[in-house]
Amino acid sequence: MQDVAIVGVGCTPVGEPWDKSLREIAVDSTWNALDDAGTDEVDGLVVGNMSSGNFIDQESLGSLIADYGGLGNISAFKVEGACGSAGAAFKAGVMAVASGYHDVVCVTGVEKMTDVVGNSATKILANACDREYEAIHGVTFVGLNAMIMKRYMHDYKVTREQISTFPVNSHKNGVKNPNAMFRREISLDTVLNSPMVADPLTVMDCAPICDGAASVILTTRERAREFTDTPVFIKGCSVKVDTIGVHDRATVTSMAATKAAAKDAFAQAKMEPKDIQTAELHDAFSIMGVIGLEDLGFVAAGKGAKFAADGEIAIGGKLPCCTMGGLKARGHPVGATGVYQIVELAKNIRGDGVIDVENGIAQNIGGTGSTVSVAILGRDD
Amino acid sequence: MQDVAIVGVGCTPVGEPWDKSLREIAVDSTWNALDDAGTDEVDGLVVGNMSSGNFIDQESLGSLIADYGGLGNISAFKVEGACGSAGAAFKAGVMAVASGYHDVVCVTGVEKMTDVVGNSATKILANACDREYEAIHGVTFVGLNAMIMKRYMHDYKVTREQISTFPVNSHKNGVKNPNAMFRREISLDTVLNSPMVADPLTVMDCAPICDGAASVILTTRERAREFTDTPVFIKGCSVKVDTIGVHDRATVTSMAATKAAAKDAFAQAKMEPKDIQTAELHDAFSIMGVIGLEDLGFVAAGKGAKFAADGEIAIGGKLPCCTMGGLKARGHPVGATGVYQIVELAKNIRGDGVIDVENGIAQNIGGTGSTVSVAILGRDD
Repeated sequence: MQDVAIVGVGCTPVGEPWDKSLREIAVDSTWNALDDAGTDEVDGLVVGNMSSGNFIDQESLGSLIADYGGLGNISAFKVEGACGSAGAAFKAGVMAVASGYHDVVCVTGVEKMTDVVGNSATKILANACDREYEAIHGVTFVGLNAMIMKRYMHDYKVTREQISTFPVNSHKNGVKNPNAMFRREISLDTVLNSPMVADPLTVMDCAPICDGAASVILTTRERAREFTDTPVFIKGCSVKVDTIGVHDRATVTSMAATKAAAKDAFAQAKMEPKDIQTAELHDAFSIMGVIGLEDLGFVAAGKGAKFAADGEIAIGGKLPCCTMGGLKARGHPVGATGVYQIVELAKNIRGDGVIDVENGIAQNIGGTGSTVSVAILGRDD
Repeated sequence: MQDVAIVGVGCTPVGEPWDKSLREIAVDSTWNALDDAGTDEVDGLVVGNMSSGNFIDQESLGSLIADYGGLGNISAFKVEGACGSAGAAFKAGVMAVASGYHDVVCVTGVEKMTDVVGNSATKILANACDREYEAIHGVTFVGLNAMIMKRYMHDYKVTREQISTFPVNSHKNGVKNPNAMFRREISLDTVLNSPMVADPLTVMDCAPICDGAASVILTTRERAREFTDTPVFIKGCSVKVDTIGVHDRATVTSMAATKAAAKDAFAQAKMEPKDIQTAELHDAFSIMGVIGLEDLGFVAAGKGAKFAADGEIAIGGKLPCCTMGGLKARGHPVGATGVYQIVELAKNIRGDGVIDVENGIAQNIGGTGSTVSVAILGRDD
């Protein structure tokens, strides 16, 4: 297995750019990353995207983005794993380089969710559930997460206040990120008193519907320093799946796919949770951030909310989390999110992020934990 | 780059199984291939699929199929490249093994197209076109292919009769394939006189709307003989893209993506077209089979239809094509087709197909040539 390095990163501001199409934001992001790597050489493109067929009636995104990006007759295809699409696309891109099939690969995650109106986006997102056993009963993605949060609060005697530390932390961090959708702090009271979406989740516990694209440029260890003095290496990279429906699981308060992907990624990296300096967690719903801390091995089961409430996930705490706003404040354009996380982690590691660390971990969840990718990035040994 | 071998193949009969869901046919196919490899060991699953989000309101197929197939917390995701999804998924699977990240990988292509009614399937398939510049004008996938065929006939002074040799050949071959959707011969008169879909394409020039799933099991050279005495090796494997819209191309009578993918695959295989003994061409429309012969380098531009009409694509001819019915008679469940081609080629090479050859090539087209994969398979050297 060849070592793989990130030598360029780029993204677009997350938001509701109704004047821009999917292809435009994807191409903007791709070229931001190529410019950052100082090259126009790329021989492979992997696109992370969940539902362009439903959101904008367009498939074939590999061809579309290579075409409108002027990348020529390169290799390109799309990878899908629900809201974990971009994390899975990242792994596909890493394998493309590690295999020797490709030399310089761009991974671009993109989603355009705001071109549909009414409850269409909710209906499309429900395609990440098990249609025949979950969505058919009318349960939405928010509904499933609400049930998980209720069960978690019951099992571990944890309060909403503690769990809601996550969105407060993400919003505080998002202020410093020019690409974040929401750049204002919120208080715990704001979270608790904002409109209820699905009890106990209020609107401020939930990441927004939005558009965005993020890209990374990957190459081999041998070539990395042709492009940059600060390559960031992939120490571990894993995608694992679980039952698609939550009703088929022994427990809903932890995610077997996160645990399996973390075990795999830590083994590849020859590291343990105590060695990790920052975490980009998939806080699409506040409860997911809490459970992520536990499943990745940073705290024991049931202790994630207290860890957060004690300030340990803040910048300056034991494990700064979601340092550029997380899914909640930066935004969660579903098929792009996993690459936004990698971009932010890479910046923190190479020296132009909001914190300065030697390594970090990213966790990207598809569905209610049916697909989870975990990546560990770090500086050269 | 590690050598990669196919050690198991499987598929479901192509047809309109309204009593079976996508997950059922995908799992049937996956286990057919695992049974064929004599194992239940698999640590990676790549799903080829174009439009499950639109056809059956279901994303997250990697998780869904691993879950209902009982494969556990393995790595899994979906790959999309329009009607070339399965060919692209095959390459992703090959890279997963070649990279050293995975040891035994299943690639399953699947599509369920017959659960929608009326013209919905046509509308969904149009998502493989450039929505903003082609589909918006009302042109369908069939319409685009009809325009390409008209131009080809004009440029090369070729008749419909010669081009329609392709469906006649595929139907003749489909008779012997128990998994083919259409197992009856048709005459040239039947093609010419069947109802017109988009002038000059009649219904018998076009592959059907249908359901199906096909799978292959991949592993390393080192492990291949643990599973089978007749491993089939991947000699070359390439995916290339072109402009998504046909209006942006210098010519519409040949496909730059096929040429680029063929050049790449032949270079990897250290082979030339004259070395190839059989071809699984993407004959979704009769004209695509003809152009495929030319772009892959088997005949000069404009000579494909005559080559076919002279009997050279028949079993016993210079280059037997689509020996198990091709897309036209076996059927074209879009996101599964590329793996059906690999399954059929592998059987012909390892000794349980309808012909006995040492090697062969498969070409899978997405859109109107916007994504093309080319794979060259062969026996061990």
